[in-house]
Order: sequence, then C-alpha cells, then structure tokens
Amino acid sequence: MPVGYQGFPEMFPVAGFRLGTASAGIKKPGRRDVVVMAPAEGSRAAAVFTRNAFCAAPVVVAREHLNQAAPRYLLVNTGNANAGTGARGLSDAHRCCAALAELADCGEGQVLPFSTGVIGEPLPVEKITAALPEALAALDENGWEQAAHGILTTDTVPKGASVKLQLAAGEVTITGIAKGSGMIRPDMATMLAYIATDAELDEAALDASLRRAVNGSFNRITVDGDTSTNDACVLIATGASGIAPQGEELEAFREALDGVLRELAQLIIRDGEGASKFITIDVRGGRDSDECLAVAYTVAHSPLVKTAFFASDPNWGRILAAVGRAGVAEMDLEAITIDLDEARIVSNGGRDPGYAEEAGQVVMNREEITIAIDLARGEARERVWTSDLSHEYVRINAEYRS
Amino acid sequence: MPVGYQGFPEMFPVAGFRLGTASAGIKKPGRRDVVVMAPAEGSRAAAVFTRNAFCAAPVVVAREHLNQAAPRYLLVNTGNANAGTGARGLSDAHRCCAALAELADCGEGQVLPFSTGVIGEPLPVEKITAALPEALAALDENGWEQAAHGILTTDTVPKGASVKLQLAAGEVTITGIAKGSGMIRPDMATMLAYIATDAELDEAALDASLRRAVNGSFNRITVDGDTSTNDACVLIATGASGIAPQGEELEAFREALDGVLRELAQLIIRDGEGASKFITIDVRGGRDSDECLAVAYTVAHSPLVKTAFFASDPNWGRILAAVGRAGVAEMDLEAITIDLDEARIVSNGGRDPGYAEEAGQVVMNREEITIAIDLARGEARERVWTSDLSHEYVRINAEYRS
Repeated sequence: MPVGYQGFPEMFPVAGFRLGTASAGIKKPGRRDVVVMAPAEGSRAAAVFTRNAFCAAPVVVAREHLNQAAPRYLLVNTGNANAGTGARGLSDAHRCCAALAELADCGEGQVLPFSTGVIGEPLPVEKITAALPEALAALDENGWEQAAHGILTTDTVPKGASVKLQLAAGEVTITGIAKGSGMIRPDMATMLAYIATDAELDEAALDASLRRAVNGSFNRITVDGDTSTNDACVLIATGASGIAPQGEELEAFREALDGVLRELAQLIIRDGEGASKFITIDVRGGRDSDECLAVAYTVAHSPLVKTAFFASDPNWGRILAAVGRAGVAEMDLEAITIDLDEARIVSNGGRDPGYAEEAGQVVMNREEITIAIDLARGEARERVWTSDLSHEYVRINAEYRS
Repeated sequence: MPVGYQGFPEMFPVAGFRLGTASAGIKKPGRRDVVVMAPAEGSRAAAVFTRNAFCAAPVVVAREHLNQAAPRYLLVNTGNANAGTGARGLSDAHRCCAALAELADCGEGQVLPFSTGVIGEPLPVEKITAALPEALAALDENGWEQAAHGILTTDTVPKGASVKLQLAAGEVTITGIAKGSGMIRPDMATMLAYIATDAELDEAALDASLRRAVNGSFNRITVDGDTSTNDACVLIATGASGIAPQGEELEAFREALDGVLRELAQLIIRDGEGASKFITIDVRGGRDSDECLAVAYTVAHSPLVKTAFFASDPNWGRILAAVGRAGVAEMDLEAITIDLDEARIVSNGGRDPGYAEEAGQVVMNREEITIAIDLARGEARERVWTSDLSHEYVRINAEYRS
C-alpha cells in the first residue's frame, strides 16, 4: 500500500471528456490494458514529453500529431512501451492511430498514441486494434476511475486527483489521472498523466499552465533517477463550462491545476517501487534554482541516504556527504543547516550541538519526513519528493521486465 | 567473496617503506584498526583527496601538512571517519598527529592523518594514541598484508597489488593497498589507497604520475555514485633503489603504476557492497571524454540497469533508456551500437535484427560482463567499472552505520 495512501478520491467528471477501457490481452489476459480518451470537438490540448533521447515511437508520433491538429482521441496501451523498436515501432504506432481514426471517423493525425510497459518488444498491433471497439463503446464521462486502473503497470493503486473551482461565472472542474512507480525521474514530464478541465483556455494559456504545473510536480519527483523513454503528460481543456478564466481567476485556475498535478506526482512517489517512506527534500537559501535542485537531487538519488531512510536510521552523515558532493561551488559549510522535520541535525559544519540521536530516531520512525536544507547564500528554493530504497525495490526490478 | 577474486597477491616489499598495525578498539574490540606507515627520510609524496565539499577533518589536515613538508608517517584509523565533526574534528586530527610525532621524534607537520568509518561521531583520540606504540613497534617492510587488513571497513577482503619492473639500471618495485566497498564514486581519488615505490622521482613527475594513474583507475569506478568525505590516495617514492627512470623508462614506470592502481580500483568494485557482477562499461566513438563519461556513469548509476544485472536479465531496453537520458546533445540514435560482450543488442535505433534473447542470457549469466557502447560520432573513449545492485547492497547499507 502506498505511503500515506488515502484511497481513490471522488473524481468529478469533466464535461466534454469521456474515457473508455478494454482488455486487449497484451501482457496479462483479462487485464484492462487499453484506454481511449475522447475530448469533445473544440477542445484544446497541451502536452509535454520525455527528454530521453531514445524516446519511444508513440512519443514521436504524438508530438507530430499534436502539431497537425487538435486531438479528438488519446489511445493508451500498457504492457508494451513500443520503445527501442526503430522504424517498425513508428509504423506500429501509426497503424494503431489509423485503426482508431477509421472506427471513430476522424483523421489519423487527430489520434495521440501512448504506450507503457516492456521496452524493446514489437507492439502487438492486432491485439490493440481488436480491442478498440470495446473501448469506444465504453466511452463515458464517468470513466475516470476505470481509466486510472487501465493505465497502470507496476503501480499498486490507481492515481487520481480532482477539484472544483468556483469562479465568478460559475464552477470549473479539473480532473486528472497518472501512472508511474519506477523509472521515475521525469524530465519535462512524467510517465503518463492525463488531466482534463471544462474551463476554456486558449492554447498559449493552456501550454503555459501545463508547463508551470509540470515543473512544480512531475519534474520534482524521483524514485530512482531513471528517466523513462515514454513519459507524457497531457492537459485537455474542453471549454464545455463556457467559462474562460482571465486575470486573477486565471491565476486561481493555474494554482488549482498546480495542486492537481502536485497531488498526482506525490501519489507516484507514495506508490514508488518498494517505497516505505515519503520524503520531501526542501532546499532553500540557494543562489538560484539550479543549485537548489542539484543539492536536492543529489540527496534524493543517494543510495546510501535512501537505504538509511529504509532502515529508519537517523544517519545524518550520509545526508551531509550527499550535500557536500552536489557540486555547488564555494559553499559556506559553516552556515549550512540541515533539519529532519523538527530536529536540527547539522550546523557549523558538523553535528548540531543540540542534536540527540533519540530526536532523530523519533523523526525517522515516521512514514513522511522532510529534509530541510538551508544553504544560507541566497533566496532560491526548490522542493523535490522521493522515496526510500528497500529490498522490495530490488525485488520488483530484478523480477519485472520493464 | 568478491567477483572473480583471485586471492591476496604476493606483495613485494618496497625498500624504505615500513608498515605497522595495532588494535585500538575503536569500533570492534580486537580488530586491527590503526595502521602506521613510515617512508624513510628523503622519500617524496604525492596525494589526491576527495572533492566532496564536506571533506573530513583528516583530509583538511593531511592537505595542510603535505604543503609543509615531506611526510615521515602516515596514520590511518578505521571505525570513525572524523567527518562532519567541525572544529573539534580538526583539533582531534591534529592531536593524533602530534602524539605520533612526539613518539617518533618528528614534526607534527610530517604526519598525515587518514580516517574512515562512521561519519559524525567524535574521534576517540585517546584510544588511537594509546595504540601508537604498538603500531610503531610493528613497523616492517613486510607489513603490507597486515596493513591491507588494517584499513578495511565493510570490505570483505584485503586489497593489494604489486609489480616489479626491470629497468636498465636495475629493478624497481611498486606495491599498493586500498580499501573501499561502498560510498564509492571517487572524484579525484578513492576511499583510501597507499602505493609505494623504491624508484626515485622528483615531485612533479610523482604528482603527474599519480594523477594520471588515479584518473584511469579510482576516478573510473562507481558502486553507488556516492562520493565519500574521506577519499585519499597517496603515492610515496622512497628512491631507495637509487634508480630514477627517465624518458621511455619513466613512461614504462607510469604504465606499471597505472596497472597497479587499476588493479586496486577494480578490486574495490569486485568487492563492492553486495556485488555479484563485475561490469565494464566501455564507451567509444564520443566527441570528447566528457560525453563518454556522461554515458558511462548514467548507465553505471541506473538502479534499473543494476538490478537487471543482479537478476541476470538481458533487459537491454534499460541500457538503451539510460544512454538516452545521459544528456548528450544531438546523438545519432540510428548510428549507436550497444554490445553485451559478443552479443550485439542495439543498432539502428532499436533491437539489433540479429539479436536473440538466448545470446543475451548466455552473457548475463556470466560474473564479468562488458557493455560496449559506440556513439559513432568521434574518437574519444572512456571505460568505467561498476557492480550490480543486489538485495545484499540494501541489507548492508540499511544495517551498517557508515
């Protein structure tokens, strides 16, 4: 069970956005492994994708199609990533899009493909296309929870977040789902995430809103530092509410969107492979964001820090060593402070004089812990969320063929 | 037992270089945890240290002393790193040096201190100084194997390498020991390594020789990407052979030295915490060393690649994904090839057409495996050595307080 998991939330439907699932038997018979999402005509879309140079075929095709037209359908399959599949992979992704376009009577360029699962195996196109009629027949504005299940791979629970926002002209809804548990160190985007709103935004506002929200959420989490070949995050605005937030209301909308994506991103960490702890790394006092992030990610990726958290061992020396190797020039070691929740562990270049092992142990026994690092040399601040490194992580990744 | 371990080698003594050990009871009673090394008067020394900003007190003091005078004594303790110990740590390191200087009748500045073990605990100075007479009494040119044992922490075996080199004027010897098993991603140097030779070299040649050798050895290995606060590597030339290699003979000497350090560095990986595989990552065809190293370290640090090796799973997609996220601009994905020993796994942007899973499985079942990556865009080449990520790594680091 994910760390601090509260159960699947109530998912408010988004007018003009339907979701349907089907079983194609790609990897496990009977599993819902194909999801189709259908934004109503007139919807606008923004998306961000992985920066992995070996990006998967569906990422290439989805980017291409997004540049051609507003999408009418999103097609997701699990069980096969269609990555590392060369020219055949591109052709397979196109074939899936074409099959859906024919059934749904739209252009192939209006279908965005997404795949997740094992890398390097040919995509079973026939299995997927055979399942499309079932998925199309199931399309429903109340399909969010089923779709949240349909996009999972090693995740242990479906991940969703949903809010309603009261604006002067009425109410708008933002609802989203995500999947991801390992190979998590998103760069521009995360594994797979789909968010829809019935607010009306033009493309520039939609794109800017998505990028800011991704930057403060999916681009601030890491399980294992491995950026997937298939990361994608899509935001659809159907406009069906007829409400187009402007000015302060647009900012309120963007903050609500930030919240939905942050919640989805944190759910991925809570359900990180083998995670037994949810760790917030809060670095402040940096000269700029880059150095705050360098420190935060060095701590977040340190296997020694991660195994100490797994062991609930207040081994603060490992945190100090990770901060020290983060590559920040001319740090004033005497000025840096490090806290584990309420316990100050480092000051004046070493163990804080008031620190007692018992206090550290109390914090480390918790499931949710914040490491606060103050570099004391500027005003920049960044937060990153990560999980610990457990036996279960090794077991999952030694056994699962991702 | 380390991967491919051949047993402790014959250690040729180096004229003018004596080693002695003692038990100070720092962490475990009865364990040899103090080592003293004594280069004869007239010896020259070169050293490299960690680049971790939070470097340990002994590193600060050893650097300072090296700038003052040629060292007469090296003092090593295990069980306590004297790192993250602030002003008191510096004073403790000085006190240990002063105690040895008094017993041995030399200046405090002629003693170099080294510590390894738990971070953040005060150094037990009295225990260490009480053990010094025993260590001094034990000084012997045949003390290498005992010293190799005396510097260990989580290592499972002592690590040594020794060669004799025939030059025109006679024979010179290079003998060295090292320790290190976790928190291994040396930057400028490794954990602790001590190499001595009876050749005569001036300080500039000694320093240049050490830096080149470290660069091709300790700076090319990684277990977990964690750079220690206490890394140090020292090369002593006693000159006792009376042979001062020049020109081609100096190059022959440097190649022999490179070989000794490479052997020691590889022994650290073979004995990496929980290691069941010894993995060479050979990246060629890069535009420069930096991009070869970026690719090599991204693969070497990927927990997904490391767990796949632990599972002997020919999961080449994870290697491809790691290469793709290494941050090398404008890679020609179609031109890149990746081989696992004799099996070509990637070409033309995806799985090589001739690749069969069985061939990959044959390679992955081996204990020693080379991943060869050809970026096909230049002449640069770099090799990095690493280990896998196993249950044992997590167990060791969840249980051991480093």
